[in-house]
Amino acid sequence: MSDALTELRERLAEIADLNAAGSLLGWDQQTMMPERAAPQRAEQLATLGRLLHERFTDDAVGRLLDAAEPLASPGSDAALVRVTRRDWEKARRVPSELAAELARAGALGHAAWVDARERSDFAAFLPFLRRNVELKLRYVECFDGFDDPYDVLLDDYEEGMTSAEVGALFAELRAGLVPLIAAIAERADAVDGSPLHGEFPVEGQRDLVGRVLRQLGWRADGWRIDEAAHPFATSFGPGDVRLTTRYDTAYVGMALYGAIHEFGHGLYEAQVDPALARGPLGEGVSLGVHESQSRLWENVVGRGRPFAGWLHGQLREIFPERFASVSVEDWFRAVNKVEPSLIRVEADEATYGLHIILRFELERAMIAGTVALEELPEAWNARMQEYLGVEVPGDAEGVLQDVHWSGGDIGYFSTYALGNLIGAQLWERARGDLPDLDAQLAAGDGSALREWLGSHVHRYGRTYPPRELVERVVGGPIAVQPFLDYLNGKLRPIYGLAA
Amino acid sequence: MSDALTELRERLAEIADLNAAGSLLGWDQQTMMPERAAPQRAEQLATLGRLLHERFTDDAVGRLLDAAEPLASPGSDAALVRVTRRDWEKARRVPSELAAELARAGALGHAAWVDARERSDFAAFLPFLRRNVELKLRYVECFDGFDDPYDVLLDDYEEGMTSAEVGALFAELRAGLVPLIAAIAERADAVDGSPLHGEFPVEGQRDLVGRVLRQLGWRADGWRIDEAAHPFATSFGPGDVRLTTRYDTAYVGMALYGAIHEFGHGLYEAQVDPALARGPLGEGVSLGVHESQSRLWENVVGRGRPFAGWLHGQLREIFPERFASVSVEDWFRAVNKVEPSLIRVEADEATYGLHIILRFELERAMIAGTVALEELPEAWNARMQEYLGVEVPGDAEGVLQDVHWSGGDIGYFSTYALGNLIGAQLWERARGDLPDLDAQLAAGDGSALREWLGSHVHRYGRTYPPRELVERVVGGPIAVQPFLDYLNGKLRPIYGLAA
Repeated sequence: MSDALTELRERLAEIADLNAAGSLLGWDQQTMMPERAAPQRAEQLATLGRLLHERFTDDAVGRLLDAAEPLASPGSDAALVRVTRRDWEKARRVPSELAAELARAGALGHAAWVDARERSDFAAFLPFLRRNVELKLRYVECFDGFDDPYDVLLDDYEEGMTSAEVGALFAELRAGLVPLIAAIAERADAVDGSPLHGEFPVEGQRDLVGRVLRQLGWRADGWRIDEAAHPFATSFGPGDVRLTTRYDTAYVGMALYGAIHEFGHGLYEAQVDPALARGPLGEGVSLGVHESQSRLWENVVGRGRPFAGWLHGQLREIFPERFASVSVEDWFRAVNKVEPSLIRVEADEATYGLHIILRFELERAMIAGTVALEELPEAWNARMQEYLGVEVPGDAEGVLQDVHWSGGDIGYFSTYALGNLIGAQLWERARGDLPDLDAQLAAGDGSALREWLGSHVHRYGRTYPPRELVERVVGGPIAVQPFLDYLNGKLRPIYGLAA
Repeated sequence: MSDALTELRERLAEIADLNAAGSLLGWDQQTMMPERAAPQRAEQLATLGRLLHERFTDDAVGRLLDAAEPLASPGSDAALVRVTRRDWEKARRVPSELAAELARAGALGHAAWVDARERSDFAAFLPFLRRNVELKLRYVECFDGFDDPYDVLLDDYEEGMTSAEVGALFAELRAGLVPLIAAIAERADAVDGSPLHGEFPVEGQRDLVGRVLRQLGWRADGWRIDEAAHPFATSFGPGDVRLTTRYDTAYVGMALYGAIHEFGHGLYEAQVDPALARGPLGEGVSLGVHESQSRLWENVVGRGRPFAGWLHGQLREIFPERFASVSVEDWFRAVNKVEPSLIRVEADEATYGLHIILRFELERAMIAGTVALEELPEAWNARMQEYLGVEVPGDAEGVLQDVHWSGGDIGYFSTYALGNLIGAQLWERARGDLPDLDAQLAAGDGSALREWLGSHVHRYGRTYPPRELVERVVGGPIAVQPFLDYLNGKLRPIYGLAA
């Protein structure tokens, strides 16, 4: 009878290989592929998506699950069966043709978005967005037992998370952010953000990104770093973790913090127990937990006071003129400047949450049909004005700025803010366990934190559901207060505000 | 009933998409992949290979072929059915597990070869070669109706070609090459090869390669050029043609002529009729015809007197000091210097054939079991001494120099020399059709030749079997004399030898 488990593993290994091939097609599409290949790449992705869906949703997988279930020993066997059954039951509800259409529309949408964003032309992107939303609605119809259609989409990115719960967390988050941002706005001039701006040739930035990543744990024999219009990280198994970043020669923060962010994602994948590779447990458990990793490294470490010292030393070596009269303290303050702005990926830690809350609301409205898609730019711009007080000059800096919707990823954005919350909870815990952490980071040494995350979070892959994993590590559910405490604890002193 | 044809096309389009995904895994492996990913990439390639084999060899494909055959109209429909039946009947003879093993062993062999070549350590590569040969022998056993087991392998690369025929062509080729090489050897000092050597920074060489490729027809929106240890070209459909080259800072010929060579392959794929894309007709018909294209551009155009003028102008611009005192004539003579040497890919046009004849003989011996694999280095080195009079200093410059055997490609090498023969036949014909060709190439303009090749050869893809295609264009079978005439016509004047 243990043969059923072996057979299941083999079947899942094949699925994992096909998934890796599909991920490579996707990585290549965004980093390497010549533009004329877009239509054919869409066909290739659609075919692979259809085949994956067909093979995974096969009756045989169900029979293997039934046979393996009673025999799986507690631990990773039981987790394998649980996760596979969840994925299988979800996937069985989606017809193969719809899965293929979603993949094809996503690939075409991505190509159209790249072009539309470049020309700031929402109308050119609209038919592709419309198609993606239509398909997502058909996707939602495949499921029942949800209070809200948007819950179906959320659950794909964050197992078990509901619109109501996210709504409640975001209400608390917003209530905490608004007074902090308002107090900071009164003292906007207290922080000079100019050290991040100037002339930073790509060559020097590449050097900087390389030094920082190597320092944090990136290794050339198992990782890559490339350029992409919308940076992302992906992995095709242990020993093949791929980061991307983009360079802005006038703003050093783009490539540097983008790369540290993607490093956080990549490290999670790199540190999953190799015994879980080539199977459904061998990857990060949810996007929220994934984002907790990227944002922990980007913001908590990368913008933290201890690491600023080491980082500043590198900046002085690479850009000596620019940083001759910029002190460590100047740099630390600059990278923590809070300022309402247009672009999510460039937003500071405090206003970032409001960018997400805007997207969460618009996505719910798109799925509920309470906003017409052609009016999305207006709805976007009005909310940007209301939440952040900024005027959107064009769609490239507004509704077209993010890649997600182009590829059909609707329901994804919330996980960024959830990641901020989880990241702060993990950080609180790690600091408790690692009394020398600040001193290590001040020396540019992230190894203790890397190992702590590896042994507490990363190695488990998808062994535990995301909520259980968080609970096991931090001793409670996802909460807002640790993030607000962390943010107030860093930003209030910088801005000379009372605690 | 025409539905059978439609259904067949759809099935084949799916196969083509999976093939493209597999090719991308292969391209990435050789250009981008971090080294630690080698074992998992081998699994991915094996899975994709197995799946492709399973889906293509399915009984359903046979039924579709039977139903479509009587209804296919002459022309591309009939060709589609003919080519698919041939491929299907060949593939049906190979068990899925063997196909997967061949793919896996090839991927592992490739990784082992990269490492072994670097350390010039044949012993480290031997177990992988042994495995590849064993699997090839099992592959050969799947077929019958061949006079010679090696014919089975040849037929995979060059439809219908036999060991006996290649042997006969190579005997005639060798008989023509030996006296020419001997006569040249007497006047070895007549040509100074030094213009190709010196210091050529990679940046300048990249510029040169870029200029030359763009001039010949490479376009950024549908092509790439990257680096690889063993340069190759691949394509994942129209609008996605990928070349690779490698840079030797002491020898400008490596990257330049390597890139032109791969351009010839890429152009063939780029100019196949787009209506044939996503199907078995949408690619080059055989390796011999493919090599006729790469070697025609590399040698006949790239080392020809007319194009030398334009090329020399670029070299003077990019490397002004190096080429200040090198005339067009010096350059033309240098790139046509004949000199027995160690490395096939660096060999001149005249001695090149002997490198191939050596490999053809050793491959036949490997398959016939008349050479022990552990004695391959000795056998190689002895033949290098006998045929070319050169001493092999180590296996990296000997038996380990080529990638082919590492990936399981045995039977492939002959097609390089066949390509030289076919290329010369096509060139003879093109010159007849294009009276201004020399003047165009002298101006760096390859467009007329490009179009001639497109309309006479490329656009047909696999519509005609390779022999029929050659026959249709040149009016006769593959022949040795045009190549010998071309070679004597160029080299004898350079070396001051009587015609």
